[in-house]
Amino acid sequence: MDIQLSELLDFLRYPSISTDAAYTDSVSECAQWLYQKFESMGLKTEVHGTPGHPVLVAKNQHRSDRRTVMIYGHYDVQPVDPLDLWISPPFEPRIENGILYARGAADDKGPILAHIQGVAEALQRDGDLPVNLIFLIEGEEEIGSPHLGQFLHDHRDELRRDVITLSDTGMVAPGIPTLTYGLRGIACIELKVTGPAIDLHSGIYGGAVANPITALAQMLATLHDTKGRVLVDGFYDGVRPLESWEKTAWAKLPPADPSLLALTGSPELFGESGFDSRERLWARPTAELNGIGGGYQGEGSKTVIPSKAFAKLTFRLVPDQSPEEVLKQVRAHFEKVIPPGVRLEIEAGHVGSPYLMDPNSVFGRAAQRAAQRTFDHEIALIREGGSIPIVNTFREVLGVESLLLGLTLPDCRAHSPNENFPLENYQAGIRLNQALLQELA
Amino acid sequence: MDIQLSELLDFLRYPSISTDAAYTDSVSECAQWLYQKFESMGLKTEVHGTPGHPVLVAKNQHRSDRRTVMIYGHYDVQPVDPLDLWISPPFEPRIENGILYARGAADDKGPILAHIQGVAEALQRDGDLPVNLIFLIEGEEEIGSPHLGQFLHDHRDELRRDVITLSDTGMVAPGIPTLTYGLRGIACIELKVTGPAIDLHSGIYGGAVANPITALAQMLATLHDTKGRVLVDGFYDGVRPLESWEKTAWAKLPPADPSLLALTGSPELFGESGFDSRERLWARPTAELNGIGGGYQGEGSKTVIPSKAFAKLTFRLVPDQSPEEVLKQVRAHFEKVIPPGVRLEIEAGHVGSPYLMDPNSVFGRAAQRAAQRTFDHEIALIREGGSIPIVNTFREVLGVESLLLGLTLPDCRAHSPNENFPLENYQAGIRLNQALLQELA
Repeated sequence: MDIQLSELLDFLRYPSISTDAAYTDSVSECAQWLYQKFESMGLKTEVHGTPGHPVLVAKNQHRSDRRTVMIYGHYDVQPVDPLDLWISPPFEPRIENGILYARGAADDKGPILAHIQGVAEALQRDGDLPVNLIFLIEGEEEIGSPHLGQFLHDHRDELRRDVITLSDTGMVAPGIPTLTYGLRGIACIELKVTGPAIDLHSGIYGGAVANPITALAQMLATLHDTKGRVLVDGFYDGVRPLESWEKTAWAKLPPADPSLLALTGSPELFGESGFDSRERLWARPTAELNGIGGGYQGEGSKTVIPSKAFAKLTFRLVPDQSPEEVLKQVRAHFEKVIPPGVRLEIEAGHVGSPYLMDPNSVFGRAAQRAAQRTFDHEIALIREGGSIPIVNTFREVLGVESLLLGLTLPDCRAHSPNENFPLENYQAGIRLNQALLQELA
Repeated sequence: MDIQLSELLDFLRYPSISTDAAYTDSVSECAQWLYQKFESMGLKTEVHGTPGHPVLVAKNQHRSDRRTVMIYGHYDVQPVDPLDLWISPPFEPRIENGILYARGAADDKGPILAHIQGVAEALQRDGDLPVNLIFLIEGEEEIGSPHLGQFLHDHRDELRRDVITLSDTGMVAPGIPTLTYGLRGIACIELKVTGPAIDLHSGIYGGAVANPITALAQMLATLHDTKGRVLVDGFYDGVRPLESWEKTAWAKLPPADPSLLALTGSPELFGESGFDSRERLWARPTAELNGIGGGYQGEGSKTVIPSKAFAKLTFRLVPDQSPEEVLKQVRAHFEKVIPPGVRLEIEAGHVGSPYLMDPNSVFGRAAQRAAQRTFDHEIALIREGGSIPIVNTFREVLGVESLLLGLTLPDCRAHSPNENFPLENYQAGIRLNQALLQELA
C-alpha cells in the first residue's frame, strides 16, 4: 500500500464527529494529525482555537508576484447512526473493489486529503508551488460552521486570496469532471397550530371544536397546486430563468431520471410541471415538509382531539430569490389561510442565500481546463440542489468566488451508512489539485 | 363521617388500574373489598375469574313474580399520569368544599357505590327489595371490557333480566337529572403514506420526488369542506334526522356553548354549519384526526424528505350509520384522492355501533319518574357524543335495553388529573337507586 493511501486510512480512523461532545478529544487529535501532516510538508501551519473545534491554516512561502489560492475543506464528520446499517465499522476503513468505505471518506476527508497530497507531491517534486497557497481546514462544517464566519472576519488580512476552491460537491457520474457553479439557498419555518387548551376526548367534544391537525393539514394543502407548483404569492418573482447555455450544457449530461429513481426508491418521480428533473433540482425553488407531528402517535388508537399540531418546512431557493423576502411571503400566505377555531404561531428558522458564479470567468475557465486535463473528458457545468452556506460567507467576508470541483459520486452516501469514496477519485483528486494550481497561476 | 362516605373513601384507596400489570394485585384486592361489601349486605355473591380481571355477580333472593333488574358498573380505574398535575395524590381521597377528589371518584366508583349503598340501605330498612336484583361489576371497563362479552355469553341464563341500568354517563348540569338515550358509535382507521424508500436530503432531492407529508396533508384536506361538512361520499346517508321531540327536549337544556368554551379552552367553537353545538356533539357524525406524524419532530430543523408519514383517524357515528359501511366509504374516498408519487396503505381499526333507545318505553318512563322524584327537577333527555360499547353488547347478547342515568358533572374530569365527584351526587345516587328500583318494579 502506498503512503498516500495509508495516510488516508489513518485520517479516516479518527472519529471526528463534531456534533457530539463525547468525541471532542477525537476531533482535536484529528486536527493534530493534520497539523503534523502540514508541518511535514514544510508548510507554515497554525492551529487556531475557537469556542468550538479548531481551525487549521497552512501556507507555503508567499511571494507578492504570484496569485493566492485558498483551498477550503473540513476534517469533521457526521454521526454514524444508525450504526446497525453499516456493513463494516465506520471508523475502520475497508477497501472492496477499489471503493473505500468509512465515515468521512467522501465528506470530506477523501477530497481534502487529495488536495493536500497533490500539494505534498508537487512540493517534493518541484520544491515550490506555482501559487501562494492557503489551506483553510475547519472542524465544524457538519454543525453549520458556527465560528468560521467570525474567524474569517478576524483574520481577513492574513487570508487575503484571489480565489477559493473546495471539493465538497459531487460529480454527475464516474469519470466526468464537474464544476458546480450554482447552489440553492434555504429558508426554514415552523408552523404551530393550537386549538383546545388541552387534549380533549374526541367523543365528548368531537364536532363542536376545530381539530388542530385538520386545520394544519388544510393549511399545508394550500402550499402546492396539483401540478407541483408553489402557490405562495410572489414566490417565483425572484427566480432567474435558466440561460440557454445552461440548458445546452445540461442536455449533454447523462439522463437523470433512471438514477434518481434508483437512488430515491420513490414509486415514481414527481415535481413542478413544465420542468425536467434537473431543472426541478437545480434551478427551481421548492416548498418541502420536513416533519409533522400532533396528537397520538403510538400503537393503535387514542381518541383525542389534540391541543396542538406542528409542521416544519424548508424552502429551497434559487438565484435571485431572497430568503428574507420568501419568509415574508410564506408568513403572509399562512396567515391568510388559517381556518376558524385555531391559533397559528409561525416561527422563522435559519436562512441561506442561493449561490451563483460565472463558470466562464478567468478562474472558472482555469478550473474547467484543469478538470478536463485531469479526467480527459469534457467538463460538466452544473448547479446543485443543496446549500453550502460557507461559499456565501466567502463571498461576503473575503469578497471572492469559490470554485466547486467535486470528487464524490451520487452513490457515495455522504451522511448515510456505508459512506464510500472510489480510490480512483482520490488519485484523480491529487492530479486535479496540481493541474488546478498550475492553471490558476 | 358517616359509614357510606367512609366506605367510599376505602373503595377509592385501591389503585385498581386495570391496564397496568403492576397493579394486578390491587385490582384483585379491590374486587375482594366489593365481595365483602356485597356479602355483608346479605347478597349471594360470586367472584368470577376471567383471563383478565375478575367479574363480580351479586344477587338478592329472586322470586318469579318480580321484575329482574341488572345494575352494571366497574371497579377498575384509568391510569393517573401525568401525576404532577394532581393537586393531591390520586389514591388518597381528599374532600374540599363538598367535592371528593380521587382517581375513580366519578368513573365509576362513586356512582356504582351509590347504587350499592342504595340497595344496602333499602335492605336494612325493608328487609327486601321491590325487584330481583343482579349487580354485575367488572374490572376491565377501562381497557375495553375484553372478556365481558364472552362472560355474558357463558352466563346468559343466570343473568336473565328485564332491564339494565348503569351510571357511567353524565348529568347536563348540577341538579338536573339526566337520562342518556343515545350514544355515538366509532370507526378507526390509519393512513400510511410512503414516498422514497429512505429519508432523503431535501436539498439534493427536493423538487424531483413527491413528499409523503405533503401528499398526506393534501389527502386529509379533502375530508371536510370549509363549513365543517365531511366530504366522504355517502357518509351522511345513514344519519337519522333529529326528531322534533328531541329538538324540543334539547332546547330546554342550559345553553351549551359557554360551558363548552370554558371546558375546551378553544379560541372559538367550530363545527358543521347548520347545526348547534349539541346537535354537532350528539346527533351528527364527525371525522377527527387523533394523531399525525412523519419526518423530523425534534428541536430546530432537519432537512429531510421523509420516507413515510401517517395519520390516525376516528369517525364518531350516529344512528343509523353502520361503522363497517363508513369504513368502506372512507377507504374509497382516500383511494380516490392519492396524489402522484406516493403509495397509500389503509389500516382499519376497531368499530362500535351507535346506540339509541326509546326514553319513553315502559322502563324509560320509569327511569324518568325515578330521576324526577330524586332531584325534584324535570329530567333532561339527552344523547352523548362518546361511545359505551357495552350497551350494544347488552342489547346483542342479553337482548335488553340499558337505562343510562348519569351522576357525574361536565367538570368531573374523568380520565384526567384531579378527577372529582360531588358528595351531593353520591347522596343523590343512593336515593336515585331506591326510587329507580321502586319505579321499575
